[in-house]
Amino acid sequence: MVSVVILGAGNVATHLFKAFKESDNISVIQWFNRSIDSIKQYKNEVTTTDDLSMLKDADVYILAVSDDAIASLSKQLSLKDKLVVHTSGSVNVYDLDKKHKRGVFYPLQTFSKGAKMNFANVPICIETINKSDYHILKELALSIGSPLKKVNSDQRRVLHLAAVFVNNFTNQLYRVGHEITESQGAEFDLLKPLILETAKKIQDISPYMAQTGPAKRNDIKTIKKHLKTLESNHHKDIYKLLTSSIQQTHGRKKL
Amino acid sequence: MVSVVILGAGNVATHLFKAFKESDNISVIQWFNRSIDSIKQYKNEVTTTDDLSMLKDADVYILAVSDDAIASLSKQLSLKDKLVVHTSGSVNVYDLDKKHKRGVFYPLQTFSKGAKMNFANVPICIETINKSDYHILKELALSIGSPLKKVNSDQRRVLHLAAVFVNNFTNQLYRVGHEITESQGAEFDLLKPLILETAKKIQDISPYMAQTGPAKRNDIKTIKKHLKTLESNHHKDIYKLLTSSIQQTHGRKKL
Repeated sequence: MVSVVILGAGNVATHLFKAFKESDNISVIQWFNRSIDSIKQYKNEVTTTDDLSMLKDADVYILAVSDDAIASLSKQLSLKDKLVVHTSGSVNVYDLDKKHKRGVFYPLQTFSKGAKMNFANVPICIETINKSDYHILKELALSIGSPLKKVNSDQRRVLHLAAVFVNNFTNQLYRVGHEITESQGAEFDLLKPLILETAKKIQDISPYMAQTGPAKRNDIKTIKKHLKTLESNHHKDIYKLLTSSIQQTHGRKKL
Repeated sequence: MVSVVILGAGNVATHLFKAFKESDNISVIQWFNRSIDSIKQYKNEVTTTDDLSMLKDADVYILAVSDDAIASLSKQLSLKDKLVVHTSGSVNVYDLDKKHKRGVFYPLQTFSKGAKMNFANVPICIETINKSDYHILKELALSIGSPLKKVNSDQRRVLHLAAVFVNNFTNQLYRVGHEITESQGAEFDLLKPLILETAKKIQDISPYMAQTGPAKRNDIKTIKKHLKTLESNHHKDIYKLLTSSIQQTHGRKKL
């Protein structure tokens, strides 16, 4: 049994709390947040507090707070020689105060408010400064059914950066697709199965092998027609840059 | 029962053939391809031919050939007053020879060689010049379990263009994610659940509502760190343009 104190009340904190609660192998003994209001709805399920000096004794303290708050919060903890981990993709493990045994428990996934997360689909990237602390975080990940991977701070920073491309930027392309269709009388919903299939395809074959379309075929006629159809210069810029990117990847001439 | 002749041997032709064969309501009575070799493996399942003058009588002739070949192939058909449709997203229905009853049967999906396609996930965009031909194409779509939608040539062109953004360009972002991770010692596979979740999210909420990340939060510190971490100027260009696009959408300052 691993005992845990959660600090923070954002999406990651909340999803972890719910997953931990369902595991027979994990006991969430306390939930801290600066504003107690954000977590008061859980007060029948767990001891809540907004007082750092009242933190209980636990095996792991999980700082699921914003990147900027991690260093200062870890400094304020009057714990000694306790395992304290953060959940951020881009913060170095050494940014945690050095009085702690330090580690990272980074769930590489996008969390929405509301929707329940199946942690079998959430790879946990684990880092610890002391080798002996690794097994506790491993046990935490396994107890919620997550795949896990030892990932150092450099690798984690790179994964977080790549995640911006495949998540935030991809979502923005969906948004552009939404703008293009809705502004010209077509229905965005018709694209949803394609969006899902594009993501599914990549689970089995490489993005290089999965590529299709006018840019890869170097189909200049269609590319020109598309640029003419686009009404916004901003959309044209994205079209040109990503077309040229595909052509570069697949050894075609540039626009 | 709808009788069909398929012309062409690419991914769309092959996937349609397989789906039609499984339906009790559709009879594929002939498969034409310029090179008979590409379809000879199906010769025990259907009459194959490479001779246009030997085309049998059918309810619908489906031209699943490359965009550039549609107009000329439809001209060469010595049929009269028959329903002839193409399957392209970007070719106008009027590009088909006017001696035919003309229509479009456009499956809005990405087709891979090999993998079986579940047509329940393939919206069919249908257009016919004569209203009375619509029901035959509707019956075809329903018989393979596809959702269908009446879509005119302008709307179809816009959908095809938007599909380039949400499919080809999105896939290129996956590719960039692959380049970034593999070149800096991290593992692309860890991103795959995130890629899938990003696409799933959009099935229920709008891309606008689904957006997260440093660009939306206008987190300048992280954006600068990311630009510093990127090794390729080309990746930096994509990062800057899509970050600025997100900021524009969400009313943040530009980079």
